[in-house]
Amino acid sequence: MTDMSWIVLTSTVAAALAIALGVMLPALAMGRAISQALESLARQPESERSIMRTLFIGLAMIESLAIYCLVIVLIILFRNPLLEYLLK
Amino acid sequence: MTDMSWIVLTSTVAAALAIALGVMLPALAMGRAISQALESLARQPESERSIMRTLFIGLAMIESLAIYCLVIVLIILFRNPLLEYLLK
Amino acid sequence: MTDMSWIVLTSTVAAALAIALGVMLPALAMGRAISQALESLARQPESERSIMRTLFIGLAMIESLAIYCLVIVLIILFRNPLLEYLLK
Amino acid sequence: MTDMSWIVLTSTVAAALAIALGVMLPALAMGRAISQALESLARQPESERSIMRTLFIGLAMIESLAIYCLVIVLIILFRNPLLEYLLK
Amino acid sequence: MTDMSWIVLTSTVAAALAIALGVMLPALAMGRAISQALESLARQPESERSIMRTLFIGLAMIESLAIYCLVIVLIILFRNPLLEYLLK
Amino acid sequence: MTDMSWIVLTSTVAAALAIALGVMLPALAMGRAISQALESLARQPESERSIMRTLFIGLAMIESLAIYCLVIVLIILFRNPLLEYLLK
Amino acid sequence: MTDMSWIVLTSTVAAALAIALGVMLPALAMGRAISQALESLARQPESERSIMRTLFIGLAMIESLAIYCLVIVLIILFRNPLLEYLLK
Amino acid sequence: MTDMSWIVLTSTVAAALAIALGVMLPALAMGRAISQALESLARQPESERSIMRTLFIGLAMIESLAIYCLVIVLIILFRNPLLEYLLK
Amino acid sequence: MTDMSWIVLTSTVAAALAIALGVMLPALAMGRAISQALESLARQPESERSIMRTLFIGLAMIESLAIYCLVIVLIILFRNPLLEYLLK
Amino acid sequence: MTDMSWIVLTSTVAAALAIALGVMLPALAMGRAISQALESLARQPESERSIMRTLFIGLAMIESLAIYCLVIVLIILFRNPLLEYLLK
Amino acid sequence: MTDMSWIVLTSTVAAALAIALGVMLPALAMGRAISQALESLARQPESERSIMRTLFIGLAMIESLAIYCLVIVLIILFRNPLLEYLLK
Amino acid sequence: MTDMSWIVLTSTVAAALAIALGVMLPALAMGRAISQALESLARQPESERSIMRTLFIGLAMIESLAIYCLVIVLIILFRNPLLEYLLK
Amino acid sequence: MTDMSWIVLTSTVAAALAIALGVMLPALAMGRAISQALESLARQPESERSIMRTLFIGLAMIESLAIYCLVIVLIILFRNPLLEYLLK
Amino acid sequence: MTDMSWIVLTSTVAAALAIALGVMLPALAMGRAISQALESLARQPESERSIMRTLFIGLAMIESLAIYCLVIVLIILFRNPLLEYLLK
Repeated sequence: MTDMSWIVLTSTVAAALAIALGVMLPALAMGRAISQALESLARQPESERSIMRTLFIGLAMIESLAIYCLVIVLIILFRNPLLEYLLK
Repeated sequence: MTDMSWIVLTSTVAAALAIALGVMLPALAMGRAISQALESLARQPESERSIMRTLFIGLAMIESLAIYCLVIVLIILFRNPLLEYLLK
Repeated sequence: MTDMSWIVLTSTVAAALAIALGVMLPALAMGRAISQALESLARQPESERSIMRTLFIGLAMIESLAIYCLVIVLIILFRNPLLEYLLK
Repeated sequence: MTDMSWIVLTSTVAAALAIALGVMLPALAMGRAISQALESLARQPESERSIMRTLFIGLAMIESLAIYCLVIVLIILFRNPLLEYLLK
Repeated sequence: MTDMSWIVLTSTVAAALAIALGVMLPALAMGRAISQALESLARQPESERSIMRTLFIGLAMIESLAIYCLVIVLIILFRNPLLEYLLK
Repeated sequence: MTDMSWIVLTSTVAAALAIALGVMLPALAMGRAISQALESLARQPESERSIMRTLFIGLAMIESLAIYCLVIVLIILFRNPLLEYLLK
Repeated sequence: MTDMSWIVLTSTVAAALAIALGVMLPALAMGRAISQALESLARQPESERSIMRTLFIGLAMIESLAIYCLVIVLIILFRNPLLEYLLK
Repeated sequence: MTDMSWIVLTSTVAAALAIALGVMLPALAMGRAISQALESLARQPESERSIMRTLFIGLAMIESLAIYCLVIVLIILFRNPLLEYLLK
Repeated sequence: MTDMSWIVLTSTVAAALAIALGVMLPALAMGRAISQALESLARQPESERSIMRTLFIGLAMIESLAIYCLVIVLIILFRNPLLEYLLK
Repeated sequence: MTDMSWIVLTSTVAAALAIALGVMLPALAMGRAISQALESLARQPESERSIMRTLFIGLAMIESLAIYCLVIVLIILFRNPLLEYLLK
Repeated sequence: MTDMSWIVLTSTVAAALAIALGVMLPALAMGRAISQALESLARQPESERSIMRTLFIGLAMIESLAIYCLVIVLIILFRNPLLEYLLK
Repeated sequence: MTDMSWIVLTSTVAAALAIALGVMLPALAMGRAISQALESLARQPESERSIMRTLFIGLAMIESLAIYCLVIVLIILFRNPLLEYLLK
Repeated sequence: MTDMSWIVLTSTVAAALAIALGVMLPALAMGRAISQALESLARQPESERSIMRTLFIGLAMIESLAIYCLVIVLIILFRNPLLEYLLK
Repeated sequence: MTDMSWIVLTSTVAAALAIALGVMLPALAMGRAISQALESLARQPESERSIMRTLFIGLAMIESLAIYCLVIVLIILFRNPLLEYLLK
């Protein structure tokens, strides 16, 4: 195989595995936060507003971690800066 | 094997494994959120509306993580941008 | 072995493993949701309607994740788009 | 070994492992749902009807996941669509 | 080794491992269901009839999953449909 | 090594590992059921009869799963049907 | 190495590992049953008779699983039926 | 393959895996902190201010750990100082 | 290496690992039974006699499992019946 | 590949994995400390001052561990003292 | 390497690993028994005599399991009976 | 590769992994100690002095373990005594 | 490499790993025993004498297990009896 | 590579891994003991003296286990007795 073929091949595999692994625990963390929010809502319905605000900020923070992973995967798939060393 | 055959082969395997791994923990997280929603409903039936709204937002957030994974898998299967380096 | 034989072989193995792994945690998540629904029914029999509705929506969401996995597996088995690069 | 022999061999192994892995967690999930149903029955004997209905729907949903796995295994053993590429 | 010898060898190993793995979690699930049934019996002796009925249906459902696994193993040992491609 | 030697060797190893793995979780499940039966006996001594009946049925169901495994192992050791393809 | 040497070697290793693995979880299950029996004795000293009877039946059932494993190991060490194919 | 190709290939794979692994446990830790904040809000609505301040400081500390990982990954992808030894 | 050397080597390794693995879980099970016995003694000092009798029978049963493992290891080290096939 | 290329390659991979592994458990530990601080705040709002001081000291101690890891990774990437043996 | 060198080498490694693995779980079991004894002492100081007697018998039983492992390791290091086959 | 290159390479990798593994559990242990200190502060605000003193001694002890690891890593990176055998 | 070099190399590695593995669980067991002793002291300060005596005997028993491991490691490092077969 | 180079290389790696593994569980055990001491202090402030004495003895015992590991690592790095066989 040519060098380029090897790099295409392994980059594809790495991207697939990285996104699969990278959404795992953020999903679990979201599930935990949401389930706790639901429990808090059932216990203190009158403080729904502050619960919802905290939940949304929290989900955004966790989502940001998954986004880091997605961004790196997209960089690898669409515009890998390391390939410039080879294409020169 | 030709280069292209190797890439087809490993991309297929990676896509299959990535989707299998990538739906695992989102499913678990959903199960957790739903089961907590059911418990909250049984404890506070009168706040059903806010529980359902929180649950749906939460499920959508978790689903989005699984969708990230599905999108990357579909990109790899149907239109892998890295293949352009080889087809040129 | 010819290239095509290798691809058939690994695609078959990957499809089998992917469906086996991909139904694992959705099944667990369903079991969790159902068992919680049963507990809620025993604690609040009068809110059966809203419990059942929430449970069905939840099971459908989890099922959708397993369906993603099944769809990818069926695409690989019956009509793998990557094979077009080779058959051309 | 001939190409066909390799494919027969690996398909057999993959089918055996896939069905073994694929029934694992659905079984666990069923055990969880059933044990919760039994506990609910002991706590609320008078709502037996709605408990049984929920349990049966739940078991059917979980069973469906194991059936997905069984179907893929049977497709691989009896009529693998990928083999047509080779038999042509 | 001849092709047929390799296939006999790996099929035997796969069958042994598949049945060993495939009875693992159904056994655990049964143990869970039975132990819960015993606890429910101790707590509500008068609803023994409905507990036993639910337990038997549940055990049959779990047993069915182990049977799927056993059937696939027996098919592989006694009458593997894939072998027809080779014996022709 | 001759073909037959390889098959004897791997069949022996597979049989030993399969029975070792196959009795693991049934043993655990039995331990769970028995320990729960003992707890129920201590809590409800007067319903000993129905507890013992449920326990025995349960142990028989779990034992059946271990027997499946033992039967497959004995078939492999004493009369492997796949060997007929080679002895012909 | 001769064929026979390989088989002696692997059979010895397989026997040693199988017995080591095969006594693991039965031991754990026994420990669980015994510890529960001790707790039940402390809670209900007057029903010692039925507790002891249940415990002994349970330990015998679990022991039977370990015996299956021991029997297979002894068959492999002392009189492996598969060796007849080679000694003929 | 040339030396540079190997380095590009492995750097890409390492970057993908490192970001996937590196966001895992920070995500879990955030989920834990957020879910506890939600519980505290439900129990002590009047101290919302100090709870939110502590939560934000905590999330920032955890996020900093994920950022360390992201920074190293970006250094590897965009400007790896070790490459200067080779490009000289 | 001669055949005999290989067999001596692997038998030694297998014996060492088998005894190490084989005492693991029996030790854990004993620890569990003893700790429960101590708790029962503290709760019901007057039924010390029946607690001690049950504990000793239980420890003997668990010890028997470790003895199975020790016996197989000693057979392998001192008088392996399979070696007769080679020494003849 | 030249010696230098191999060292660049493995150093890069090791740095990426080390930072990914090294932030994992500090993140988890921080999550634990923060979530406990939030619970303590909800239970004892009046001792906020001493809780915050303890939390900050604790987070600094845990952060120091992650910093050790980051420092070693940066040493490896930017100025590895072992390379002097080769560049001389 | 000569045969004897290989055997010395692997025996040494196996002995080191076996003793390391073999003291693991007995240590854990002892820790469990001792910690329970301490709790029982705190709850029932007046039955110290019977608690200490039970604890000592239990520790001796667990220690015996670790001794089995130590004995096999010493046999392998100092006087391996299998070596006689080679020294003859 | 020259001998020195191999040693530089593996020392670098080992140092990176060792520091990553070596800070893992000390971090977890610190998290546990700190979270317990926070809980104790909330329960007994008046004994803050003795809690803080115990916490600091404990954190110092745990930190010392991580320092052992860091020292060995720095010795390997900056002044490995074993290298003198080679440089002589 | 000469035979002796191989043996020195593997013995060193085995000794390092064995001591690392062998102190793991004794340390955990000690931590458990000590933490329970501290809890008992807080609950029953007046029985400090018997608690301390039991704790010291227990720690000595657990320490003995770690000492077994240390002794075997020192035998391997300083005076391995198996080396006499080679030095003769 | 020369023999000495191989030994230097593997000794360095083994030392790094051994110290990393060897401080793991002692750290966890310390964390457990300290957190329990903090809880006991909060529950029984007046018995601070005996709690601190027990904690210090316990930490010293656990530290001794980590020291065993450190000593073996330092012996391997600075003065490995096995090297005398080679330097002679």
